[in-house]
Amino acid sequence: MKQGIFISIEGPDGSGKSTQISFIKEYLENKNFEVILTREPGGTLIGEKIRSIILDVNHKQMSNMTEALLYAASRAQHVEEVIKPALEQGKVVICDRFVDSSIAYQGYGRKLGESVEIINSYAIAGCMPVLTLLLKLDPQIGTSRINDCVKDRLEQEKLQFHQDVYEGYLEIERRYKGRVVGIDASRNIEDIRKDIQRQIDLVLEKCNNVI
Amino acid sequence: MKQGIFISIEGPDGSGKSTQISFIKEYLENKNFEVILTREPGGTLIGEKIRSIILDVNHKQMSNMTEALLYAASRAQHVEEVIKPALEQGKVVICDRFVDSSIAYQGYGRKLGESVEIINSYAIAGCMPVLTLLLKLDPQIGTSRINDCVKDRLEQEKLQFHQDVYEGYLEIERRYKGRVVGIDASRNIEDIRKDIQRQIDLVLEKCNNVI
Repeated sequence: MKQGIFISIEGPDGSGKSTQISFIKEYLENKNFEVILTREPGGTLIGEKIRSIILDVNHKQMSNMTEALLYAASRAQHVEEVIKPALEQGKVVICDRFVDSSIAYQGYGRKLGESVEIINSYAIAGCMPVLTLLLKLDPQIGTSRINDCVKDRLEQEKLQFHQDVYEGYLEIERRYKGRVVGIDASRNIEDIRKDIQRQIDLVLEKCNNVI
Repeated sequence: MKQGIFISIEGPDGSGKSTQISFIKEYLENKNFEVILTREPGGTLIGEKIRSIILDVNHKQMSNMTEALLYAASRAQHVEEVIKPALEQGKVVICDRFVDSSIAYQGYGRKLGESVEIINSYAIAGCMPVLTLLLKLDPQIGTSRINDCVKDRLEQEKLQFHQDVYEGYLEIERRYKGRVVGIDASRNIEDIRKDIQRQIDLVLEKCNNVI
């Protein structure tokens, strides 16, 4: 049975994930892959409902552990309903944020530590990306790119929180070298695109799926 | 600092928990305790929103792990926002369902096993009842007491599921003898009430809170 390819994109808000995801989709479709774009939190009907609870700006009293468990719940549904079935059909799944976001935002940003990884190991049930592209951008630059009026509950956090999250991302990059590839996202779009294309080509080679 | 008393009530749907909870409240208030009644899932604004996602009859595609994580998320918020503050103020907290419901329904009913206890250990952060009253009633009798038209997603489950849940409850009773007290709920209300009163008196003695 043909096995699909699972790629996740990570990085601070404002690091240009959406632009690069569109490029990856086009690049792979031109090589005749069937590509599914999806995002976290959300990606399913139930996940979108969970997402609206997490990001609601009125939920300032939400405990850190509640937040971490809600992200994990949304992820469990996403894996079961969208990601696993698509991979079993041989598709490429490109996911805008996955488990590393939880480790960075809740584990490092909220200081929940290892509990986040343990909880999420149950949520993903062994379903991990073969490649995670980490768009690296100083959080000060990233947050300045987002319009204050449309910021959700997490985007509204203070700069220190976003710096802790970024430290978490750098730690994840060090720890999971084989899977996570850091990309300098402070450069122009075209240079970032070229780096990403190189990484995608490497993964296609590794997965023996070059057409 | 005066420390409160945390009591949970467990048992299948239709086992008469609500009736007995009202009695316990009245009994303790007559002894000049300040009593808070609360319930799971729910108990907070955020918890009630999570509750509506869990119990929605249209969410039949919800994965078992998503369900378990949502219950844990609701519980984490409940502990942080309601239960811990009330106990710190020396109040009695009576909770209609707590962590044992998750172990019975998701661990045994949904066959998720030990993962449910591990996930919930993070959600409750050491906040456990000093007494758990388990109202024991054959699930066949319990489910027949609920009107089919108003059943939520979990109540609609087949009898086999409710029997597995009940087996889980009996296992919890065996495993946590010091905390969990089984009460035969097939008898008349007055006999059940007397047993419960005896258990409450024992807890008050143990907690040195007899007035």
